[in-house]
Amino acid sequence: MTSAVITPLGVDSPARGLECRGCGARFPLAAQHACYECFGPLEVWYDAESLAKVTRAQIEAGPQNIWRYAGLLPVGQQEADRVTLNPGLTPLVRADALAAEIGLRAPLWIKDDSANPTHSFKDRVVSVALTAAKALGFTRYACASTGNLANSVAAHAARAGVPSVVFIPHDLEAGKIITTAVYGGDVVAIEGSYDDVNRLCSELVETDEFEDTAFVNVNVRPFYAEGSKTLGYEVAEQLGWRIPAQVVIPMASGELLTKIDKAFEELVSSGLAVAPEGGWKVFGAQSLGCNPIATALHADTDVITPVKPTGIAKSLNIGDPAAGLYALEAVRRTGGWMDYASDDEIRDAIRLLARTTGVFAETAGGVTTAVTAKLIASGRLDPDLETVVFNTGEGLKTLDAVAELVGPTYRVKPSLKAAREAGLLG
Amino acid sequence: MTSAVITPLGVDSPARGLECRGCGARFPLAAQHACYECFGPLEVWYDAESLAKVTRAQIEAGPQNIWRYAGLLPVGQQEADRVTLNPGLTPLVRADALAAEIGLRAPLWIKDDSANPTHSFKDRVVSVALTAAKALGFTRYACASTGNLANSVAAHAARAGVPSVVFIPHDLEAGKIITTAVYGGDVVAIEGSYDDVNRLCSELVETDEFEDTAFVNVNVRPFYAEGSKTLGYEVAEQLGWRIPAQVVIPMASGELLTKIDKAFEELVSSGLAVAPEGGWKVFGAQSLGCNPIATALHADTDVITPVKPTGIAKSLNIGDPAAGLYALEAVRRTGGWMDYASDDEIRDAIRLLARTTGVFAETAGGVTTAVTAKLIASGRLDPDLETVVFNTGEGLKTLDAVAELVGPTYRVKPSLKAAREAGLLG
Repeated sequence: MTSAVITPLGVDSPARGLECRGCGARFPLAAQHACYECFGPLEVWYDAESLAKVTRAQIEAGPQNIWRYAGLLPVGQQEADRVTLNPGLTPLVRADALAAEIGLRAPLWIKDDSANPTHSFKDRVVSVALTAAKALGFTRYACASTGNLANSVAAHAARAGVPSVVFIPHDLEAGKIITTAVYGGDVVAIEGSYDDVNRLCSELVETDEFEDTAFVNVNVRPFYAEGSKTLGYEVAEQLGWRIPAQVVIPMASGELLTKIDKAFEELVSSGLAVAPEGGWKVFGAQSLGCNPIATALHADTDVITPVKPTGIAKSLNIGDPAAGLYALEAVRRTGGWMDYASDDEIRDAIRLLARTTGVFAETAGGVTTAVTAKLIASGRLDPDLETVVFNTGEGLKTLDAVAELVGPTYRVKPSLKAAREAGLLG
Repeated sequence: MTSAVITPLGVDSPARGLECRGCGARFPLAAQHACYECFGPLEVWYDAESLAKVTRAQIEAGPQNIWRYAGLLPVGQQEADRVTLNPGLTPLVRADALAAEIGLRAPLWIKDDSANPTHSFKDRVVSVALTAAKALGFTRYACASTGNLANSVAAHAARAGVPSVVFIPHDLEAGKIITTAVYGGDVVAIEGSYDDVNRLCSELVETDEFEDTAFVNVNVRPFYAEGSKTLGYEVAEQLGWRIPAQVVIPMASGELLTKIDKAFEELVSSGLAVAPEGGWKVFGAQSLGCNPIATALHADTDVITPVKPTGIAKSLNIGDPAAGLYALEAVRRTGGWMDYASDDEIRDAIRLLARTTGVFAETAGGVTTAVTAKLIASGRLDPDLETVVFNTGEGLKTLDAVAELVGPTYRVKPSLKAAREAGLLG
């Protein structure tokens, strides 16, 4: 038994500091999101020895949520320190019928993160970010959001009894606005795009009035981003500690893709999981209405030209993606690819996924499903290799996407005669 | 090691037959829902010796879903036999802030069944019913539904690759219709109430054309109803194998209440769980727009007068409740009570629950929360005894209930100046 390590993030955190993804400069653990040297984004760096001590048995004996991986996270090692709805361990659904329809011959899995408490993968990153925020002394929780993040921050704050203020574009889906406002915190509708919202939050965080406020994806972003790693850990554990050969991941900022890749790297380098023969390939999915990262890949450039997002995949509508470069790097390094889907393709894919798997995804899940089919058709994705497709959100939040396409197939009066006349009895 | 028992429901089922809840007549395990002697409803009866063999250790070593209780269920003992989305083990959320607001001094818990795959407790009963349906040779799945059941049957059928046909009242919430139709099965909108829908299904099930069809809540209803027991098992296990002193349960047909009570009885009589001092008390919650069971209790009669349901709690709108008498019996026997809430009280309670716990319930969860507060105010519920309140569905499915009451608290242009003028900076 070694004695507990105490850091600004709580007891036994394996995190030791923040490191610039650009120049490699290192900083203490604090609410800082950009490098003081080069303005590059910061990432958590860990004590390698602490990470190496984590075993499969420890994880498997842990709780049935993301905190089973606390030994690999910057915060939350002690249950009492967590600000959380206990997300995670969402279903990995075998999708044989879908595989057959899109021409995949190897096992296909849907990682269904709509099963999280507020029904998107954002509960993972919010739990990690707000646990860090609490440790760092913040007393109000905030975010810039395309919807799902707002739902999650507002619900976490309500559970914790802490005030919240979330910033969203004014034209979000009604479902996502109501599902945020119902928790009773402040909801600020900004007359602009998500990128405008994000810019405003970056300014607010510098004001005296917001000194007490943790913006999960601004001033505590390095911790927030680490929460996404749990999606990668879970897929590997659910496959029996194997990394799948191919993964298809939705891209908004691009951060989720880089963190799932990072999770796989950590698991393999620590010996917790086994890499597939030839390594894993990471594929990124965007919508036609917001495809700056995929466009850069297709043009074989590192210059990501910001776009003004359009289209129904609002949760992915980040026109100026903060981690786009790192997503490009991960996809190129692993030999993957990126593609994008039109609104009609997204709508069709939502229905295809529902019909073949029983999973009703939001538009982002339509994007990954549609792009998976495209990548198989174009030969970029190997139809003979095991593939995991990520659904990061819930169809109930974006009903408008399919509302005009599906509905009752019969409408009859309540009598056997009417049922017979309608053709229900063959 | 004893040799496997083979029944019409599969290998190792502890079920031995069906028993009339009225006259006690017994029948073989089959798709039969009413007594041939007295037309009373049927219930599954079990081999007592098989049930007594189930241990806490067995359950705790089982899967993280309802099938950990397979030893206490009529079907699903073998994983390969299950037709399921693997629902269950939903969160039991400690609700101290809510307790303080409604005047409860003892621990208060929300059993949050919105965390199931299609976001209501119906996934539990559908998994059990369809697993029985498969064992009994049915090749099409159906139901009469107020919405949640339709969602669940359609999703289960899609996952299993089996055709489905669900019957709903035509005026359901749009969210519940889309979330059913998206799975690609037939959706029949009936121009009438749920009770009309139910009557039609009872007629259809007798036709040759529907001979191949399992209506989960008609011809395989005895198995369906058993699925509700898992909610009771879980609460007890999550409390460390203790039965809570008071439970508040929503009532539509009244069946859920009777089955949670039955689950507690089974656990105590088998020694799996400990009853509270003085026993447990079961409380039933309805809406003002559909309160036939509560009205009968208040009038101290066994005559349940059917009503024409109105109001926003559509998932509870069964005007002629099939298990109403048995719900009355359970509430009277345990010393509980019933009450009902108006639409405005339901709306307020949805917001109260969200604000204090981070759980966004559908109208049925507003009903139980509102009724809990009423029962404390009226002295029927003891404020010094541990209480569990059931939320059986998801707020995203009934957004209209709160849509006009919640929304953005600020609307501003994307600039620091605009934010300051709006008062966001104090």
